[in-house]
Amino acid sequence: MMRTRPLKVALLGCGVVGSEVARIMTTHADDLAARIGAPVELAGIAVRRPGREREGVPSELITTDATALVKRGDIDVVVEVIGGIEPARSLITAAFEHGASVVSANKALLAGEGAALHALAEEYDADLYYEAAVAGAIPLVRPLRESLAGDKVNRVLGIVNGTTNFILDRMDSNNAGYSEALDEATALGYAEADPTADVEGFDAAAKAAILAGIAFHTRVRLDEVHREGITEVTAADIASAKRMGCTVKLLAICERAADGRSVTARVHPAMIPLSHPLASVREAYNAVFIEAEAAGRLMFYGPGAGGSPTASAVLGDLVAVCRNKVNEATGPGESAYTRLPVSHMGEAVTRYHISLDVADKPGVLAQVATVFAEHDVSIDTVRQGRNQSGGDAVAFEQGGGGRWEGGEASLVVVTHRAPEASLAATVEALRNLDTVRDVASTMRVEGE
Amino acid sequence: MMRTRPLKVALLGCGVVGSEVARIMTTHADDLAARIGAPVELAGIAVRRPGREREGVPSELITTDATALVKRGDIDVVVEVIGGIEPARSLITAAFEHGASVVSANKALLAGEGAALHALAEEYDADLYYEAAVAGAIPLVRPLRESLAGDKVNRVLGIVNGTTNFILDRMDSNNAGYSEALDEATALGYAEADPTADVEGFDAAAKAAILAGIAFHTRVRLDEVHREGITEVTAADIASAKRMGCTVKLLAICERAADGRSVTARVHPAMIPLSHPLASVREAYNAVFIEAEAAGRLMFYGPGAGGSPTASAVLGDLVAVCRNKVNEATGPGESAYTRLPVSHMGEAVTRYHISLDVADKPGVLAQVATVFAEHDVSIDTVRQGRNQSGGDAVAFEQGGGGRWEGGEASLVVVTHRAPEASLAATVEALRNLDTVRDVASTMRVEGE
Repeated sequence: MMRTRPLKVALLGCGVVGSEVARIMTTHADDLAARIGAPVELAGIAVRRPGREREGVPSELITTDATALVKRGDIDVVVEVIGGIEPARSLITAAFEHGASVVSANKALLAGEGAALHALAEEYDADLYYEAAVAGAIPLVRPLRESLAGDKVNRVLGIVNGTTNFILDRMDSNNAGYSEALDEATALGYAEADPTADVEGFDAAAKAAILAGIAFHTRVRLDEVHREGITEVTAADIASAKRMGCTVKLLAICERAADGRSVTARVHPAMIPLSHPLASVREAYNAVFIEAEAAGRLMFYGPGAGGSPTASAVLGDLVAVCRNKVNEATGPGESAYTRLPVSHMGEAVTRYHISLDVADKPGVLAQVATVFAEHDVSIDTVRQGRNQSGGDAVAFEQGGGGRWEGGEASLVVVTHRAPEASLAATVEALRNLDTVRDVASTMRVEGE
Repeated sequence: MMRTRPLKVALLGCGVVGSEVARIMTTHADDLAARIGAPVELAGIAVRRPGREREGVPSELITTDATALVKRGDIDVVVEVIGGIEPARSLITAAFEHGASVVSANKALLAGEGAALHALAEEYDADLYYEAAVAGAIPLVRPLRESLAGDKVNRVLGIVNGTTNFILDRMDSNNAGYSEALDEATALGYAEADPTADVEGFDAAAKAAILAGIAFHTRVRLDEVHREGITEVTAADIASAKRMGCTVKLLAICERAADGRSVTARVHPAMIPLSHPLASVREAYNAVFIEAEAAGRLMFYGPGAGGSPTASAVLGDLVAVCRNKVNEATGPGESAYTRLPVSHMGEAVTRYHISLDVADKPGVLAQVATVFAEHDVSIDTVRQGRNQSGGDAVAFEQGGGGRWEGGEASLVVVTHRAPEASLAATVEALRNLDTVRDVASTMRVEGE
């Protein structure tokens, strides 16, 4: 029953991912044809540098005119793996206008222009698939928008950036500082020469926007994602986390508010307990933890980047889109019917781990505890170097984290869950106390 | 653009899963309609005991005549959650004949009759979806047959039975014996009164047959799956595993042979290293680890059973099948084009952990090592209570596991990878050695 006219695919970009897509399309052509129900053929590959050596990539397919390629009129599917906003956006738009469906691995574009691109796809009755844009080879977009389509997702908690996970993992296992771990990541090829997009959380924020949109059937703009990177994470923070039975991860967190009427999306480093499944995600691996009303707790784990894994996700989408073409159908499009507003970070509810440098004298703990109480932030535990007084109401344990220099002591406070805004106001008020020399670090505690 | 004629769903079975499906279809009707693009309505619920109290299930929909329900002619989708071969098979057949698509959670039926049911679905241009049949809420069928459709899966290694994982987890963490751990599982509702299907590996074998078929695009019959349960696993095996830095899990293993020309599917207890992601799957959770050529190592984790998680998977399929109905299309059907033969267990390649009770005299190790060599099975490590001689060629470590009673010693041998048949022949020959009093236990070692 296999149709004989092959489906024609235009490949935009032939770097690490593109060349692997081209290679697999060639070497596994029979398998792809059997799974699609029609042969599939690479019709052209648009590149910027045509002279570059590309092993296993048919040179007669190479062109530098991407626009002409997508406008040829006989292209069934355009695979976009060039990244960035332009020219990717214009090329995808032209692809839809000329009858093609699109498979993209472009997280920045999907996070920034997803709504407009989905509208175009719908207008032209075409597919827009982008599994590879979030966490590489790990199936996430499809499980969220199809497998969990009959469920209600309440929370997505993910390690979606391999570079930062590698750095934090090294800081944790080797007691390395941030710069030292970054150097190692760079040397091993896990971090780019300019690591900003990774270490400042931009990459993770784009993925968080995409995940939140799919998970909650709404639209989340990139600028609605609260973003903090890992550059401020210190060896002391990691050590503090260890003392609490935690480790530090850069998390992308998408949550439905308790009343169900809004959502939040945020990216920041956080402490999570070692018993949490995400804590054991090592090196440059990615993993996404999903809490759904009926399904319960699910986790998806795998390589979040790299040529082959990303190509695997692209090709899975390519098979699906080609099948749809053969069946003259389209897959599920954007689902944003809930139109849930995205709340400010101040409304996110979380726990805080706060390290304070305080004056080493009686009554400080009482003062500090009062500030927390005034902001309605309930304290879970306090750790200090020695018992400062007997009169304070809060419980505390005698820990090993105290530091005593010139009349200073350190105080570590872990709070119960409270709105981010209350926690921020508490920290602000603590800074204004005479007895608090410095708020040495604040970090959220998640995953409980 | 929403069509107004509702899609009609017949629900077969209203037990733990069915009642949850009915409840969610009622309480989340608006969400389901938005995601499908058409309202969806429960048209009837077939049960065996109509008098039973079912909270939240509309009693006017209850019928005892399942056959009449699926033959009504206006049913779009039949959801089958009664389990077992008959009457499920006849009802699903009638459903296809009367124009319905089918969502099933029935692993026994899919494993035993999957090929025939897929053929029927194709004949009637209908969908047959069964995500809930394998590992409950964990998306596996869809990721394997869609997300990885452009990749080549080489290996599936799964904990797909929650009851046995709970029992083995308790044996590991509480040093409990098998019976004691089974009793606890029964008391907590994790094991049924007759636990045979779980503890003898029948349930896992059905899932292995389904997973192997989808992963390798071929057909694997239930009787082609090698099956061993956990009833013979002893506290001593668990202790032995611990000494090796391993834990014992009941694994479903589906592998492509090294030459790619055949596959194997097997279910048996095995030791896996604590560093393997599957080792940390505790209690009744399930997880499936997949190795694919391009994607690399992926893992999917979640609750493998229970009313709500299974209902989540059923409803995800229901949304997909309803969308297909709205689009007058069908999703991907069976993909069995590779027609790879299923090899006998003897051809599976694995490692072995063998505990021997041997005579406490010089030269035994040399004899034992010779038997391994004669069968071309290479020894990785040997552990014994004391250094028996200096003349043996194999390396060994001085371990704590030796046992010295009336001239007996214990010897623990861990092999390198070798064909199962060679390992079995080695064990047989060891039994025939005068100096070997008993082969106390043999267990495979996986996950490296």
